[in-house]
Amino acid sequence: MKFEIEARQGRARAGRVTLPRGSFDTPVFMPVGTQATVKSMSPHDLHNIGAKVILSNALHLFLRPGHELIDSLGGLHTFMAWDGLILTDSGGYQVFSLKNLMKLTDAGVTFKSHIDGSEHFISPEKSMAIQRAIGADMIMALDECPPADADRAHIVKAVRRTTEWAGRCRSVKLKDHQTLIPIVQGGTDVELRKQSAESLVEMDFTAYAIGGLSVGEEKAAMLDTTEATTGFLPEHCPRYLMGVGMPLDILDAIERGVDMFDCVLPTRMARNGAVFTTEGRLNLRNARFKDDPGPVDPDCECYTCRNFSRAYMRHLIMAGEITAARLATFHNLFFYAKITDIARRAIREGTFNKVKKELAEPYSSGGKQ
Amino acid sequence: MKFEIEARQGRARAGRVTLPRGSFDTPVFMPVGTQATVKSMSPHDLHNIGAKVILSNALHLFLRPGHELIDSLGGLHTFMAWDGLILTDSGGYQVFSLKNLMKLTDAGVTFKSHIDGSEHFISPEKSMAIQRAIGADMIMALDECPPADADRAHIVKAVRRTTEWAGRCRSVKLKDHQTLIPIVQGGTDVELRKQSAESLVEMDFTAYAIGGLSVGEEKAAMLDTTEATTGFLPEHCPRYLMGVGMPLDILDAIERGVDMFDCVLPTRMARNGAVFTTEGRLNLRNARFKDDPGPVDPDCECYTCRNFSRAYMRHLIMAGEITAARLATFHNLFFYAKITDIARRAIREGTFNKVKKELAEPYSSGGKQ
Repeated sequence: MKFEIEARQGRARAGRVTLPRGSFDTPVFMPVGTQATVKSMSPHDLHNIGAKVILSNALHLFLRPGHELIDSLGGLHTFMAWDGLILTDSGGYQVFSLKNLMKLTDAGVTFKSHIDGSEHFISPEKSMAIQRAIGADMIMALDECPPADADRAHIVKAVRRTTEWAGRCRSVKLKDHQTLIPIVQGGTDVELRKQSAESLVEMDFTAYAIGGLSVGEEKAAMLDTTEATTGFLPEHCPRYLMGVGMPLDILDAIERGVDMFDCVLPTRMARNGAVFTTEGRLNLRNARFKDDPGPVDPDCECYTCRNFSRAYMRHLIMAGEITAARLATFHNLFFYAKITDIARRAIREGTFNKVKKELAEPYSSGGKQ
Repeated sequence: MKFEIEARQGRARAGRVTLPRGSFDTPVFMPVGTQATVKSMSPHDLHNIGAKVILSNALHLFLRPGHELIDSLGGLHTFMAWDGLILTDSGGYQVFSLKNLMKLTDAGVTFKSHIDGSEHFISPEKSMAIQRAIGADMIMALDECPPADADRAHIVKAVRRTTEWAGRCRSVKLKDHQTLIPIVQGGTDVELRKQSAESLVEMDFTAYAIGGLSVGEEKAAMLDTTEATTGFLPEHCPRYLMGVGMPLDILDAIERGVDMFDCVLPTRMARNGAVFTTEGRLNLRNARFKDDPGPVDPDCECYTCRNFSRAYMRHLIMAGEITAARLATFHNLFFYAKITDIARRAIREGTFNKVKKELAEPYSSGGKQ
């Protein structure tokens, strides 16, 4: 993995990540396709949105349809017909958040399948074997992600284990096109974040992720921790803030030196009729859109906005039509791609602070967001 | 409406229907978009499938979002961003089949909304006002559609009422681009079908529909009735067999002189994982497709078949991903478009009997169909 920083403004960076199978500009938002599809989207749509990297979940794919099956069918790119880049999360976070955790030791984690209740054991080595087979371009080290209300002792232990596991992941041979990314843990404790980051940096990876945030802590704590953590990471490596977030969170994190993002919100919220626009977030179920002839977002050039009215979108949602989920998902992903594009351009042009303020404005007033 | 018959083979016809806003070749299959969307499809997809006409349901649109709303937003074409042609069914069939019928008199029909239980009255005049407002290119007369087990007296009455209502529909002024199509009723009684057809033909319409079939009667009775009924209709007018059917039914009806078709099966079955192929019908949930690297249909050039394996489709279905519904729907509609295309070409080339036999073969053996 090569990372070139093309421009900086304050701590914000505009750059370009180059991998053996493709490249992408940063800051970047990666649409989430947990189960080998970005819900309701075709690869053709993802290209039209301008997506260069998507995220999938190794744990989900391990449970269904199985990493060996995917491998035997040519790997995940071929399986889902996506010729862009893929990042797989190890799924450690899901093991903890799904409350299917059965046993956690230094050896690894035993958990119950959310699909059929079957019992499974994943070690760092096993996670690498799974992700190697799936064949994503960027793969995440197995980490321990404590809940937001974990006590300090728990977080200390998670940091130690996460570092140790990163080392074990690192000793597994991956495919030539694959890059391993370790995850900084440490809750909202700056000292622990420092420890976690420094111990990983010592191992000399080419990119670093910040995990364990957006798990229920206050937004200010999330941003402060992000800001502190990027400060502990090498300037020349891409930084990936996992699972964040709302448009404003992304802009705030870019300002604090983050380069890569993923989040289920734009896709999940689309399926509930919520759309992101330059006027703020709108819920299209609202009766005030009943006869609104205007597009979802008057400033948007996406397929949905070029063709359909808010009134039509509301009709589809009220009628329970899955076309609504599809059209709203397309729009929201287009919107997320647009704000990272705008941010990137603004950093290059030295106007990030001004542009950020304009973009953030409709998302800063509590009411609309 | 202009109808030119370009070729005949036996009773089968290949023709072209021209309307003020567009034209289409026959035999034609019209995808069903009951609630102003063909479930999971975009207008862009429908163009890619080669669809020229889609069907929508005036009764559903009357109940939600309301025909006046659609009218105020520029009509159904604009509302759903479909620049092809639209046929609206009056929805009389739905009133009867949904068992929400409350009262039926010569004046019209009173029924309960399936959405909120509210009570509504539709007369032939009201149905025309609704369909005029919605603005479809072809609109259906309000008819009475008795169930398959109705006794003769009931069918006699339905035929009389359907004719009378067709006359009342005919006296309502439509928009310039709209064509009214009356519906022949009569159950599986050839004498009543004759009466119904002749009384409508006397009123001199430009196209005729055959309704009240595929409501539970035996397939042989459906085909015999269709064959008899097309014989009572003028040669120079398009004939539309409503709600039929499976691929083999369509080929059988083309052979008996039918030109236009609609059916929810290809879209509804796609959402359940059933796909139509040149090898017959397959259910992609079947475990035998678990690791099948081949496309849904090896003989198909659609987006789904060009990009995805049966194994991937099965994975999406098992994982409950709506992308599965979308990709399978695209394929099934492509398949239906293809069989009517092939039939049309074969009629022009005088090879319909041979081609039909080939197409029908995998759908004739009970097992796979």
